[in-house]
Amino acid sequence: MKSSLSAPFKSGLTMVFFLFFSHVVVSQDSSQDPPNFIVIFADDLGYGDLGCYGHPTIKTPNLDQMAIEGQKWTNFYAAASVCTPSRAALLTGRLPVRSGMASNKSRVLFPNSVNGLPADEITLAEQLKKVGYSTACIGKWHLGHKEQYLPTNNGFDYYFGIPYSNDMDFEGKKGYRKTVADNDFIDTKDFNVPLLRNTKIIERPADQNTITKRYAQEAVDFIKKNKDEPFFIYLAHNLPHIPLFASKDFVGKSKRGLYGDVIEEIDHGVGQILNTLKEEGLAENTIVVFTSDNGPWLPFDTHGGSAGLLYAGKGSTWEGGMREPCIFWGPGRIKPAVVSDLGSTMDFFTTFSKLAGAEIPSDRPMDGVDLSQTLFNGEASPRDSFFYYRGTELYAARSGDYKVHYTTQGVYGQFGERVDHIVPLLYNLSEDPSEAYNIAESHPEVIQEINTLVKAHKENMVMGKDQLAERN
Amino acid sequence: MKSSLSAPFKSGLTMVFFLFFSHVVVSQDSSQDPPNFIVIFADDLGYGDLGCYGHPTIKTPNLDQMAIEGQKWTNFYAAASVCTPSRAALLTGRLPVRSGMASNKSRVLFPNSVNGLPADEITLAEQLKKVGYSTACIGKWHLGHKEQYLPTNNGFDYYFGIPYSNDMDFEGKKGYRKTVADNDFIDTKDFNVPLLRNTKIIERPADQNTITKRYAQEAVDFIKKNKDEPFFIYLAHNLPHIPLFASKDFVGKSKRGLYGDVIEEIDHGVGQILNTLKEEGLAENTIVVFTSDNGPWLPFDTHGGSAGLLYAGKGSTWEGGMREPCIFWGPGRIKPAVVSDLGSTMDFFTTFSKLAGAEIPSDRPMDGVDLSQTLFNGEASPRDSFFYYRGTELYAARSGDYKVHYTTQGVYGQFGERVDHIVPLLYNLSEDPSEAYNIAESHPEVIQEINTLVKAHKENMVMGKDQLAERN
Repeated sequence: MKSSLSAPFKSGLTMVFFLFFSHVVVSQDSSQDPPNFIVIFADDLGYGDLGCYGHPTIKTPNLDQMAIEGQKWTNFYAAASVCTPSRAALLTGRLPVRSGMASNKSRVLFPNSVNGLPADEITLAEQLKKVGYSTACIGKWHLGHKEQYLPTNNGFDYYFGIPYSNDMDFEGKKGYRKTVADNDFIDTKDFNVPLLRNTKIIERPADQNTITKRYAQEAVDFIKKNKDEPFFIYLAHNLPHIPLFASKDFVGKSKRGLYGDVIEEIDHGVGQILNTLKEEGLAENTIVVFTSDNGPWLPFDTHGGSAGLLYAGKGSTWEGGMREPCIFWGPGRIKPAVVSDLGSTMDFFTTFSKLAGAEIPSDRPMDGVDLSQTLFNGEASPRDSFFYYRGTELYAARSGDYKVHYTTQGVYGQFGERVDHIVPLLYNLSEDPSEAYNIAESHPEVIQEINTLVKAHKENMVMGKDQLAERN
Repeated sequence: MKSSLSAPFKSGLTMVFFLFFSHVVVSQDSSQDPPNFIVIFADDLGYGDLGCYGHPTIKTPNLDQMAIEGQKWTNFYAAASVCTPSRAALLTGRLPVRSGMASNKSRVLFPNSVNGLPADEITLAEQLKKVGYSTACIGKWHLGHKEQYLPTNNGFDYYFGIPYSNDMDFEGKKGYRKTVADNDFIDTKDFNVPLLRNTKIIERPADQNTITKRYAQEAVDFIKKNKDEPFFIYLAHNLPHIPLFASKDFVGKSKRGLYGDVIEEIDHGVGQILNTLKEEGLAENTIVVFTSDNGPWLPFDTHGGSAGLLYAGKGSTWEGGMREPCIFWGPGRIKPAVVSDLGSTMDFFTTFSKLAGAEIPSDRPMDGVDLSQTLFNGEASPRDSFFYYRGTELYAARSGDYKVHYTTQGVYGQFGERVDHIVPLLYNLSEDPSEAYNIAESHPEVIQEINTLVKAHKENMVMGKDQLAERN
């Protein structure tokens, strides 16, 4: 393997592109203050779960309006199909395999995990703090629950949330998975998940019935308190990950059952946040983005979401596992559009760092690209490829319209049988978003091109030490 | 069986509802002229094929804008899963089984069919003509190609279009189905479909490369010519039914291949029509509705569309076969909303007749309801049930959120094996739009309720004489 400084395939070209355009971006925005950033990150929400992405009965008027006023991206990817690696990638702008936050021994961190995000990883919060931002992490962390790994040791001034998934620390007598599928309620006390403010446990078990509402309120409060300086809020809802909970005002509100209630409560919170920005005169100088960490968790009957027309769900490297709704909003800055170009959560790091005037780290490979010219001017996205990892293994790769699957593993990802394809599967995702028509036989030259891309990517890949495997 | 005057189940209550509210509607609109109506009807377009219904790469900015300014319905049904019966139902406001335009011997009319829509059926065009409307049928008819069955003998002042499907009169040497799947083009001359103006053939074969564009232009011209009197335009595109054709400006334009090109050309035509209405000052007094005759024809690879998160497609009584995008537009009248209540193409007849002041026929059972209070005031839709027929057989029924399948037949409908369910399948479509989780076992009482509804419906059903079976 080459040194860790080696650029990933295509990133040389990307660099040239950015060096060329970065000046344009800076001059365009020089008359404006550095924008505030709010990332609203749902948990296990599927591509098809919002009104503006085609769900027939979940009502999401605030997100729909955000999409009308901003950009609705339709080929946008989380960097992994499960929680921990997806979150690590968003915050570091790097594939999780580089930071060791992806593993073949444990797909995510657990309450008995020993490690977390390595200290030498640079988070988006750390980037923005360097250039004067106030930073808050609200919601699910899942990058290490020990104190040294918590948000406040990773660039966030403030933290309010749960340290791992809302289904962990389960102390009920029955297996909750079956219970969730069979009944519409679970007693919160069966889950002993702690709620933290900064590094202190303030509630245990966290009252998940009100948690979505409280996260939104925390974001609103942080905006009001920090309105005179640039701020970054990473609002990572721990729902609609099962088990599902909604507050009294939302239970029974949607036609889609409890799952819909949860989404509608998240949507309501989005509305509160956007209204606060408008009331405080911050809308013109804030960029809000909404997306999710991975696709819907399908084995849970109607407690799981929908990937819409995409195939499969959470845990898999099919599109349903990793392609997500993504809506950018920023009146006066973001050019309203439906964008079918490629993007990824890893691009937040690069894009927001550039806009804030924070230097992109040059001592390590970065996987993000700067989307600002697409966001502001409707130019083509500089992202032309995407690598689909399961753990530390590359299962699939996309270049432009085409996706090659080298390995697939079930529809649900966790449970399916692994299949290594001697002749890889090939799909044109623009023409065939549901991955229904394998065209490998008629387009061997496309497979060859993507093989070349993948070979170069792998040759330049230095994997970080596995942080997920070790448990007490 | 009872007399043909017997009302269908629930229509008694519906009648009471309308008698009560019809006065309100009339008085509300008495200050306005009777509105113009434009029905834009696509052919084999799926639930998931528009941007605003979640398609990632088909760009439909005009339809998306129509949905933003108007009402986007998400539980709206074509009355059949194939062309001829679906069209008969839209124009008569009655289940096609009543008019004999549904059959178990031939699912649609063919160029060698003998019959067509019976003369004693009353079309929406005839209704509107009675109260002074100018009427035009532009596009695919498919309710009988002999002169006595053509649009101009069914209430339309003007006709421009093809008399049956665009894949009929095939004279090529190879089976076109295979060709369509294998190649991206077919020579127009392989299809000998005639193009008619009124009752005369003006072009044969119809040049399908330009036909979508010409249909839109015909609609624009008709609007301009008839702007001083109320008008009704039934614009029934014969695409995206295979074989696919687009004009030079659109071939290669979309990322979704030729299928996407076709949809984008239809969308462009929608934009031209809405712009014409605006330019002529007619927007405030015109109601435009866009929908499709049935779900996507799935066996044709990427030449077929997508039902999005719905299961199955054209020809089947699964949701993907009959639920369609439906967008109502009418600035100043239609209240912008996403509507998840039930509606059907059969409701156009009742709704538009009422708004135009044309009396609903009282000598026959009608299957439409008046949607105007939903459209104008956001009230609940009066439609609370829907019957899914295949030919003359009721395969499934929906009441509120619940759908019972008594019989299913394949995913594609035409080809699948028939299964009569001894215990019917039951789905909650609001919670489970993809019909993935059969809840028959846990909700036998719901099946009982729907059985009662279906029993009453069948007892009151008088089937019309089969008009589709006889061929030369």
